Amino acid sequence: MTELEKLLGRPNLVAGAERLLYGYDATPAAPVSPPDAAAFPQTAEQVAGILELANRYGFSVIPRGAGTGLTGGARPVEGGLVLSTERMNRVLEIDERNLQAVVQPGVVTAALQAMVEKKGLFYPPDPASRESCTIGGNLAENSGGPRALKYGVTRNFVLAAQVDLPRGQLVRLGARTVKSVAGYDLLSLLVGSEGTLGIFTEATLRLLPLPPARSTLLAVFEDLEAAARSVGAILHAGLLPCAIEFMDASAIRCVEQYEPCGLPESAQAILIVEFDGGQAQVAQDARAAGGVLDAQGAVSVEIAEDAQRAAALWKARRAAGPALARIAPLKVNEDIVVPVAQLAKA
Amino acid sequence: MTELEKLLGRPNLVAGAERLLYGYDATPAAPVSPPDAAAFPQTAEQVAGILELANRYGFSVIPRGAGTGLTGGARPVEGGLVLSTERMNRVLEIDERNLQAVVQPGVVTAALQAMVEKKGLFYPPDPASRESCTIGGNLAENSGGPRALKYGVTRNFVLAAQVDLPRGQLVRLGARTVKSVAGYDLLSLLVGSEGTLGIFTEATLRLLPLPPARSTLLAVFEDLEAAARSVGAILHAGLLPCAIEFMDASAIRCVEQYEPCGLPESAQAILIVEFDGGQAQVAQDARAAGGVLDAQGAVSVEIAEDAQRAAALWKARRAAGPALARIAPLKVNEDIVVPVAQLAKA
Repeated sequence: MTELEKLLGRPNLVAGAERLLYGYDATPAAPVSPPDAAAFPQTAEQVAGILELANRYGFSVIPRGAGTGLTGGARPVEGGLVLSTERMNRVLEIDERNLQAVVQPGVVTAALQAMVEKKGLFYPPDPASRESCTIGGNLAENSGGPRALKYGVTRNFVLAAQVDLPRGQLVRLGARTVKSVAGYDLLSLLVGSEGTLGIFTEATLRLLPLPPARSTLLAVFEDLEAAARSVGAILHAGLLPCAIEFMDASAIRCVEQYEPCGLPESAQAILIVEFDGGQAQVAQDARAAGGVLDAQGAVSVEIAEDAQRAAALWKARRAAGPALARIAPLKVNEDIVVPVAQLAKA
Repeated sequence: MTELEKLLGRPNLVAGAERLLYGYDATPAAPVSPPDAAAFPQTAEQVAGILELANRYGFSVIPRGAGTGLTGGARPVEGGLVLSTERMNRVLEIDERNLQAVVQPGVVTAALQAMVEKKGLFYPPDPASRESCTIGGNLAENSGGPRALKYGVTRNFVLAAQVDLPRGQLVRLGARTVKSVAGYDLLSLLVGSEGTLGIFTEATLRLLPLPPARSTLLAVFEDLEAAARSVGAILHAGLLPCAIEFMDASAIRCVEQYEPCGLPESAQAILIVEFDGGQAQVAQDARAAGGVLDAQGAVSVEIAEDAQRAAALWKARRAAGPALARIAPLKVNEDIVVPVAQLAKA
């Protein structure tokens, strides 16, 4: 502890009762399992120093972003030191000409999105917890979110990173270009390794131009199968929404009881379908998707032309997790992924 | 050799003078270095069998697609066995509902593209050699092509694969869903490993809906810097072309002398810019890009409205490699990748 204090400074180390706060994450129904201490390094060199001490003295290190993970990735098992990146939270650079941002791992995902959007740029990955989760955690878990359908997951937006390897070595992986095909892709191996292969201490993320317009549809179904079938039908019609979200009757009722969002409570299923792109294009896509949904048996299709209504629909979708957690605290999230054509069976 | 013959059948093994054909690839200016033999397995099990024999008898195995690589990836160094995937060339499945294709490694890239396009689908990676290169080689080299700017490289389109590891074990990596975030991403590690970590014997590729329209611009510059600057300006204007190609004066003249394509021979540089998407969108994007190019100082901007003119422009770009090879047979391809903002310096 003395050596850790010397390395980090006393305010960046917690060993008292507060450490209990780092004994759990968003994974429901898991008992609190406090670490022996929690550390808040502010530089990659401090992270390396912590890992060196861990190797020397044989204690375990549990890297942690914002603790919003649902699969136990940031929880201690038997004591050890939680290494939180929350104080490494600066956006170091937004390179508008090369469509890139260089960030520290503790930057909150939604904060980065807001910053780049002000400059007409776009960071697509949008995990449900984006208002509180951090880029470092997104990298460690390879987070997705509804836009993965069109844009891919976090891995597709990392160009380069600085990583602290378990023995304390600092390495830089990747390159600041979209195409980087020389050598083994160790960066992709690190992304999604849940902190077991290294700790991200800096990342260069790929940005896109911000799509100027978006259009959101709400389709209501009295038949679950028809709703599921519609997803494939939309793609098959040559349409590529930036997101398609599916909610069944129990999810709808659960959300409405938790926080009324105006969803149709009697529906068997709803689909939220969103397009982004140029103004003319999203309007055309929304009309075409409306036609497909009608043909598949939707009882109603609403095109949310204004941003307010669209935001309400997405709020409903984001509320599904917490709403469900309230009525079913023992729920274990599986975060299943199924091929589009098998959606009805899932 | 007897054991190899027993494994593969005599017609699938070449040890006579024909083996010289496998002593080089498209890498210019490298001496022919023939293997001791070339093998043409037709199943993953035969590939595994070859690798087992290689381990037992200690000979080297050089995996080879179509040999179109420019970096020596398919060349023997000191004898050994070239393992060519050219007879594993079947498209096993095109799954229209899930937007996927399952292919053997020897399928020619352009052949797959043509097959899926007939069904209204789209396989974006387009290495310059796509008329002859194979998917297996694309995977081994993580091939790009001009569409990488918008769509990414081969790695972004592989969902799953069957791989024969060096000791002869057959493994399946990845999953048939767009999002697959459980476990280490060993598939990404294999892609681009140039055959050193394993041999792809089957791949499940991600497809997109075929964009219904495309629009191609040719901008002519008398100033190299202005042309380079325009690339960043287009992206900065919120436009995302599916391809931007840059050719300087010597590349233009070189192509026109090799095969006249109607390029302006007196220009200092040209840019070819292409958009794909909905009809209304590509027209709007092309107009907007035209405005940007004018503002950056292009002396002329032509929008190739018909497919024939666009094809001529792309033919010119694809001819640049062979044209240059003819006048400079000692050229070593570096396949450099630079951040967009540093283009003029490269």
